[in-house]
Amino acid sequence: MQATIRKATKEDLTAIHELVVELAIYEKEPHAVTATIKDYEQAFDEDIFEVLVAEINQEIVGMVFYYMTYSTWKGKMLYLEDFVVNEKFRKSGIGQQLYDALLEVGRQKKAVLVKWQVLDWNEPAIKFYKKNSAVFEVGWLTCKKYL
Amino acid sequence: MQATIRKATKEDLTAIHELVVELAIYEKEPHAVTATIKDYEQAFDEDIFEVLVAEINQEIVGMVFYYMTYSTWKGKMLYLEDFVVNEKFRKSGIGQQLYDALLEVGRQKKAVLVKWQVLDWNEPAIKFYKKNSAVFEVGWLTCKKYL
Repeated sequence: MQATIRKATKEDLTAIHELVVELAIYEKEPHAVTATIKDYEQAFDEDIFEVLVAEINQEIVGMVFYYMTYSTWKGKMLYLEDFVVNEKFRKSGIGQQLYDALLEVGRQKKAVLVKWQVLDWNEPAIKFYKKNSAVFEVGWLTCKKYL
Repeated sequence: MQATIRKATKEDLTAIHELVVELAIYEKEPHAVTATIKDYEQAFDEDIFEVLVAEINQEIVGMVFYYMTYSTWKGKMLYLEDFVVNEKFRKSGIGQQLYDALLEVGRQKKAVLVKWQVLDWNEPAIKFYKKNSAVFEVGWLTCKKYL
């Protein structure tokens, strides 16, 4: 199935937020999303992130949410924060179209690599990334501190 | 030991690059740093990252290298990419001063959390983060794809 892939505008943030919540439910963390659509809008105005959306019949059915970061070892690095395709449209090739479009954005922005995280039990996603020859890092712990 | 903590300028990038290489050697990846000082300068001009440096007698002896990112679940998130104190100045409190200054930057920028990664065998760093009540995430794999 061929989707239309385009860069999201501020008007798309409600649909994007819905997909984030859908992914959080899939990831068994239904109450984890505390950021609101208004928070998204503020950060969008500050150019903190970008989103590519996939449309079928003018309806947003998937998205990749990303931002530019920097690897002190390698240089400019695109970070893929969230990658969701609506459940009804999975296994139809739309994820591949979004992923390919993301890599193309990375190349256009002169990034050297793309980085992301995946849950260790999310077999369909891991299989997809392996098929796309992603490298799985080992030996690093992820830490966070709430402010 | 009380260091002077300040935001880095473009002129500090050579010293910062040296500290990155020092950390890469400590992390047993001496040849991993392929980004050059010129790459750093270009990305600095593009406002992709910021650095706080610690000075003793006008010499840079430590730094935290960070950038703003976005958690789709929580909101604005400061990402700590690299955190180094020169070997001669470790265990003197300078790391704590840099870490505290980083959290303050995060609060000023209205970030909700700070995130970073640490090697699972880097006991002194893990001990430091635990002492500072960081949360260690479990169950996530980190992936990357070179472009």
